[in-house]
Amino acid sequence: MTSPDSALLDQTIHNAIEEASQPTPTEGVFLVGAGPGDPELLTLKAVKLIARADVVLYDRLVSPEILALIRPDAERVHVGKQRSNHTLPQDQINQRLVDYAKAGRVVVRLKGGDPFIFGRGGEEIETLADAGVPFQVVPGITAASGCSAYAGIPLTHRNYAQSVRFITGHLKNDTCDLPWRDFVQSNQTLVFYMGLVGLPVITRELIAYGMTPDMPIALISKGTTPEQQVVTGNLTNIVERVAASGVHAPTLIIIGEVVRLRDKLNWVDSWRQ
Amino acid sequence: MTSPDSALLDQTIHNAIEEASQPTPTEGVFLVGAGPGDPELLTLKAVKLIARADVVLYDRLVSPEILALIRPDAERVHVGKQRSNHTLPQDQINQRLVDYAKAGRVVVRLKGGDPFIFGRGGEEIETLADAGVPFQVVPGITAASGCSAYAGIPLTHRNYAQSVRFITGHLKNDTCDLPWRDFVQSNQTLVFYMGLVGLPVITRELIAYGMTPDMPIALISKGTTPEQQVVTGNLTNIVERVAASGVHAPTLIIIGEVVRLRDKLNWVDSWRQ
Repeated sequence: MTSPDSALLDQTIHNAIEEASQPTPTEGVFLVGAGPGDPELLTLKAVKLIARADVVLYDRLVSPEILALIRPDAERVHVGKQRSNHTLPQDQINQRLVDYAKAGRVVVRLKGGDPFIFGRGGEEIETLADAGVPFQVVPGITAASGCSAYAGIPLTHRNYAQSVRFITGHLKNDTCDLPWRDFVQSNQTLVFYMGLVGLPVITRELIAYGMTPDMPIALISKGTTPEQQVVTGNLTNIVERVAASGVHAPTLIIIGEVVRLRDKLNWVDSWRQ
Repeated sequence: MTSPDSALLDQTIHNAIEEASQPTPTEGVFLVGAGPGDPELLTLKAVKLIARADVVLYDRLVSPEILALIRPDAERVHVGKQRSNHTLPQDQINQRLVDYAKAGRVVVRLKGGDPFIFGRGGEEIETLADAGVPFQVVPGITAASGCSAYAGIPLTHRNYAQSVRFITGHLKNDTCDLPWRDFVQSNQTLVFYMGLVGLPVITRELIAYGMTPDMPIALISKGTTPEQQVVTGNLTNIVERVAASGVHAPTLIIIGEVVRLRDKLNWVDSWRQ
């Protein structure tokens, strides 16, 4: 077993950044995905941009370890968002991005997960495009990738799921205005983002539209962080189990036969012992 | 405009790694996502593990800049895979992972994209679990996230798509054995991985099952790399346009109203001018 060589590692990382293909940006707005929680899941590109920003606008879901990368002399702006309790309305966030950039500052807009998957990143940069502000988009590890990896649940698998579908579980006014019938198919995995509050509706509707009540389901709370908790069950018992567990948002829900693989592939708990 | 401070940046990255939440692993097999191509889209965790591995088994889609992070004294094993031309059959890859780990070596299994999205990562670690070999899974930026960000096409958007679906476009023997009817829904984005060869079948079947022939579609070749090319069109003209462009694999296909946003949100080309 080779022991880690810290100097070599630092040099390697330095080289990785030096050799990176993109030139170093020095102006505009950078819409950056912060990943699902574990700060080690930041990309090199995200680290570079956060460390260089003059001002960082960040969401509630960005972890303190990641915010610690911001320069002490840089401005930090917390822009929300909690469920139904946005610190700043979306149009004000959009306008602030424009204003900071036009003032000549390097602006990072830091969002949990990936900015183009349920991040409303598209809306924010539409405003920038309209205002003639240059921007870049840096993808992040989306919650589905992070949580599935750290829960030991592959999203696709030749024997169980040939496709995977990401759906927002943030149901407006607890209505059921989703194409439930389309969700009830074999050989696919369903992933609901932000579905803790909507879980009773989601399970009820899937059963009503014909999904077998035995279908395995996992709810992952605070995925990829040291506080990660995974509650598993099936469509009929998961609501009760989740309530008993007392887990909190943020959560991700995975529904499909692939959830069974967790019995064998759950690695996080054994590494933490 | 603040000029970049290189020493501060290096220190920041060093701190980020020091403060990272996971203890440094020193044994077993690490199934690591290498992301979509741009080496700056590697995660910090991936960089650490690649730099520390005694042996790295890697796929064809992992870029040379990323392979350059491997220690000079570490063993490199190229295990494929080209379409229908695997350098090593899957069962031999699985067995090699077990053998290297049991010999006491730190093994990194490096896969393009995310190992749990069309990466067959689940199958590889099932073998490890059966053999009692400890393992970890490190998510990577999946091609859909990387290509959508670098093409300026949000995968979800409040006005156009409330869900996104990832499907393998690697059709077995060019058959059409996919649930085409289910793909033809409004307000969702379809993403086909590895769909260059299957593109004529995909577009034909979607139209046959009722999708409007005007539906926007984008094919991204070598996404996130300096050689990225994006071909856009609709279901009726995309095959011809792709043929005329002469683009090569790897490719990703995005189908849905969100593709129209690229006209406004394409940022890569302007930054390269």
